[in-house]
Amino acid sequence: MSIITLTTDFGNVNGFVGTMKGVIWGIAPDAKIADITHDVPAQDIRTGSIALWRAASFFPAGTVHVAVIDPGVGTARRPVAAQLGDQFYVLPDNGLITPMLEDAEASGAVVRIVDLDKPEFWLKQVYTTFHGRDIFSPCGAHLAAGVPLEEMGTLIDDPVRKPLPRPQQTEAGFKANIVVIDYFGNCSTNLRVAQVPDLSRVALKIAGQTIHGILPSYGHAKVGELVAVTDSEGFVEVAVVNGSAARSYGIQLDDPVEVILNG
Amino acid sequence: MSIITLTTDFGNVNGFVGTMKGVIWGIAPDAKIADITHDVPAQDIRTGSIALWRAASFFPAGTVHVAVIDPGVGTARRPVAAQLGDQFYVLPDNGLITPMLEDAEASGAVVRIVDLDKPEFWLKQVYTTFHGRDIFSPCGAHLAAGVPLEEMGTLIDDPVRKPLPRPQQTEAGFKANIVVIDYFGNCSTNLRVAQVPDLSRVALKIAGQTIHGILPSYGHAKVGELVAVTDSEGFVEVAVVNGSAARSYGIQLDDPVEVILNG
Amino acid sequence: MSIITLTTDFGNVNGFVGTMKGVIWGIAPDAKIADITHDVPAQDIRTGSIALWRAASFFPAGTVHVAVIDPGVGTARRPVAAQLGDQFYVLPDNGLITPMLEDAEASGAVVRIVDLDKPEFWLKQVYTTFHGRDIFSPCGAHLAAGVPLEEMGTLIDDPVRKPLPRPQQTEAGFKANIVVIDYFGNCSTNLRVAQVPDLSRVALKIAGQTIHGILPSYGHAKVGELVAVTDSEGFVEVAVVNGSAARSYGIQLDDPVEVILNG
Repeated sequence: MSIITLTTDFGNVNGFVGTMKGVIWGIAPDAKIADITHDVPAQDIRTGSIALWRAASFFPAGTVHVAVIDPGVGTARRPVAAQLGDQFYVLPDNGLITPMLEDAEASGAVVRIVDLDKPEFWLKQVYTTFHGRDIFSPCGAHLAAGVPLEEMGTLIDDPVRKPLPRPQQTEAGFKANIVVIDYFGNCSTNLRVAQVPDLSRVALKIAGQTIHGILPSYGHAKVGELVAVTDSEGFVEVAVVNGSAARSYGIQLDDPVEVILNG
Repeated sequence: MSIITLTTDFGNVNGFVGTMKGVIWGIAPDAKIADITHDVPAQDIRTGSIALWRAASFFPAGTVHVAVIDPGVGTARRPVAAQLGDQFYVLPDNGLITPMLEDAEASGAVVRIVDLDKPEFWLKQVYTTFHGRDIFSPCGAHLAAGVPLEEMGTLIDDPVRKPLPRPQQTEAGFKANIVVIDYFGNCSTNLRVAQVPDLSRVALKIAGQTIHGILPSYGHAKVGELVAVTDSEGFVEVAVVNGSAARSYGIQLDDPVEVILNG
Repeated sequence: MSIITLTTDFGNVNGFVGTMKGVIWGIAPDAKIADITHDVPAQDIRTGSIALWRAASFFPAGTVHVAVIDPGVGTARRPVAAQLGDQFYVLPDNGLITPMLEDAEASGAVVRIVDLDKPEFWLKQVYTTFHGRDIFSPCGAHLAAGVPLEEMGTLIDDPVRKPLPRPQQTEAGFKANIVVIDYFGNCSTNLRVAQVPDLSRVALKIAGQTIHGILPSYGHAKVGELVAVTDSEGFVEVAVVNGSAARSYGIQLDDPVEVILNG
């Protein structure tokens, strides 16, 4: 069994993603393919990297994650492939890899990255405007089909990094930021719930509102109420029960959240 | 071969559905996975149950349908799994199961439902905000991989039910309701065409309009015309040829349709 | 291994596409299924045919492409299946097949088309409003499962054709047209880059703007600039770097593009 995931900003309107699947099955006929998302906002490397990061660790060892948010397609930016722990990644070298790379480094897992500089693993004809089809898909498929990572390119140790902002400590607690706004309008911060010693004695200030306490889940408050909960990766999330915090309070990516411990 | 379908209100933006596929393939590596829809309006149990009900019976025997429209995630509502005839369902116990359950009961098919109360079939770490990933996907995968239903939880006989409205008989015929509005703006009612004795001698009153007769298909009238046809499940549907009845006539879910037989 | 692709205008909201996968796996349990797109504008045969045409040639030999953009569903229009070169197509006979058929004819590849007039390959119950589920999916699955094309229907030689407009030669060069607008707002023309002798000495007039030269890719100009590049099929494309040419300049399908060689 081999699994390939796809994360892009291509949308699903034009058939680009379907085309990539055709290329993959031409090289790795037994691969199973899962779409992570193709609705990353156009050229938004950070949002794409977070979507992939939240999903990747739930896939079996050996999965190959092909990610193409690639504003520099057709320029000198490198296509790369990486082994990070037991997962593989094939993506442009523009920072997309950052959260997975930082996790692997922090945990002491295997980190190997190659510049995909061997055209024998690309499609024969490469167009400068669609490397997702012509370079990333075939390289991902060759990896999934068993080609060793080092055969596919030259080892590098200087991948481009775009770290997420980290919460800053303050006198009262933390200054965090909104880093994910999901489909429901729930707004996740970069603060881990584990960094909050007492979930019943914390106050969050955001968008002119103050939220007291962090609840186990949405259903523990009334419909329409602004609450804080633990999101599905263990981070503090601001949400409106059965509604959209983003829409109701105009919350946007990067907005600050003042976290007052013992508040 | 095992097949798992996924029906949620998660959208396709954030990668939640892709994550569920990773969990599934970690447990049931050979499962084929089909998305039914992830665009159920947020927390709309009825629309989700209808989408699944229209699709499920077209899948091979033994298919496991995982459905997560779950406003009560993280509260006391039970996660359940069911065998209804030759299909299996894994979903929150909030009424989602109703149309499939009613069909199974009406036809005398097998009906077995268990409370998924055995954490050994869940992911090791369960977050209160994403049971789709941490409980429903792994339980669905274990079922697809061959674990018997009864091993996965305690049999129950009191699932939550949310029945669809049924058409009411009137002196002239029926008072029906719009229960599905599809992507094209076609509006299906809860009245079976089989309940109409003569398709050429029936009048439908909806949104201030009167439609005479039920046509075999859209192409039997002029572009832009408001017509009634038989929908793809055998119910009476109101449609605009090559257009949107919902948009053109402001039709909404639950709107009444007066059906006059011999009209 | 057998592969089936799906191209429709059904959207992903109502579960129609998931239902088709259930039908397919009931007949061809080992088939892999790739979605090309389900977001073709409703009843837009030309846009659907272009999406399929851009994707199909990247699939392995023997792939079965099921395409359902079908305003005439339930009328006398024929359902057909075709072998064109090493790919198979199952679709309504309404012009959808045109670009693939023209390519096959131009290259001297195998061209065989049958009218799918044998109900034993359809679902037992056929509704007039959903041939995608009841005729096209089962016929595609039977093809993928190995039923020979000629067994499935009567050979025909008069498929409906809807050719794309072709660029017209002018004194200065060509009058081309916009024929694809993609998800990013990039606007592809019907003029092949190979028809432009010198990419640095060409001018394109569109939407009151003049673009000089055709660049290798988007990243070779500044963000926000209107440029011409080679699209992923080798056609001249008009784009805004990291933006939307369609939105910024109000470009629409069929808009004329004046191409001045040596301009």
